[in-house]
Amino acid sequence: MAKAKGSSGRTIESELFTVPARRGRAARVNKGQAIKIINTHGHQVVDTWSFSAEDLTEFMSMEHLRPTIGTIFPTKGHNLYSNRRRPIMVFEEDTSPGIHDTLMAACDDYRYGLLGCKDYHDNCTDNLHAAMRQIGLRAPETPSPLNLFMNIPVGKGGKLTFEEPLSKPGDYVILRAELDCIVAMSCCPQDILPINKGKTVEVHYQILG
Amino acid sequence: MAKAKGSSGRTIESELFTVPARRGRAARVNKGQAIKIINTHGHQVVDTWSFSAEDLTEFMSMEHLRPTIGTIFPTKGHNLYSNRRRPIMVFEEDTSPGIHDTLMAACDDYRYGLLGCKDYHDNCTDNLHAAMRQIGLRAPETPSPLNLFMNIPVGKGGKLTFEEPLSKPGDYVILRAELDCIVAMSCCPQDILPINKGKTVEVHYQILG
Repeated sequence: MAKAKGSSGRTIESELFTVPARRGRAARVNKGQAIKIINTHGHQVVDTWSFSAEDLTEFMSMEHLRPTIGTIFPTKGHNLYSNRRRPIMVFEEDTSPGIHDTLMAACDDYRYGLLGCKDYHDNCTDNLHAAMRQIGLRAPETPSPLNLFMNIPVGKGGKLTFEEPLSKPGDYVILRAELDCIVAMSCCPQDILPINKGKTVEVHYQILG
Repeated sequence: MAKAKGSSGRTIESELFTVPARRGRAARVNKGQAIKIINTHGHQVVDTWSFSAEDLTEFMSMEHLRPTIGTIFPTKGHNLYSNRRRPIMVFEEDTSPGIHDTLMAACDDYRYGLLGCKDYHDNCTDNLHAAMRQIGLRAPETPSPLNLFMNIPVGKGGKLTFEEPLSKPGDYVILRAELDCIVAMSCCPQDILPINKGKTVEVHYQILG
């Protein structure tokens, strides 16, 4: 699909929006538009979901995209499939080393309990649902997210470890919508494991025409 | 937890039940009981789900168990975690080579459409929901299943391939319930890819006291 262009012939870019540290945001991205998610500080994991705006029960699904693209690691050039096995977005650009996770659930308060927290801890599951409510919508469930910039190497025999991101400040991905989408993002507040280098910070995004 | 014993001191075993070829079944497995799932012919993949009987919105979750057990491949000795991060079952016994899949969604009619089918094809997603309805329940969503005996090697760079099972006739697993559970199983009707050696057959199960 051709990109929409402004009168100057250049791609139209929205203002720069912030996903605050440890919080979530959701945004509409219409078919043909794209979202540019910028890892401003380089070391922040962004749990990312995409729902069909027409029917929120259709959403980007890690377990449905893996069999279709034939890899655990989607990156530039891959279609991102929904739970109805059709492309909901296209992974159009990626300036990072292309290491993103599809294996780990969004963190939740139970997870932080297991990690020793006695009190409530910010978490991506609650951030997803808060972000959707903030724009008047309700996520029908908590799909397994595309964890952008999250570095979970797969070792011998399928062993999984939690490592620091390999991305650098300003790295970004561009995901283009194949359907009218609601994209939700959470700046992962994980500050116990090293996946955010121990510093949970904000990221930025733009909608591209 | 100690196994319940009959008056003879031996574990109580139910009659042998059948999951027909290309179909699903669901069974109640109370806390402390176990289910023995027998790969009667050796080459049949069994998509398996477990829901809390008290609240079906809590269920065994592949994306929640992977971070907790630290591997893609659960086998004998592992706890199987729910989407609330607590053990819902324990993988107590496994006479197969221990190769089971956690990466692939249940097949569905969309999947067979992508594989070239023009008409409806039996599939594990519909089997799950039919099996639950058959015992008067409704699955709240379609969790990613534990695909028993399914051989999906993870290659270099996360590459995924569909291979024949490594199990042999009569191999079985025993999953013991840590909560009162509803366990659903589907004899995967995949006859296009080689995951069932091209022959879709029945399996058997027993409830163990």
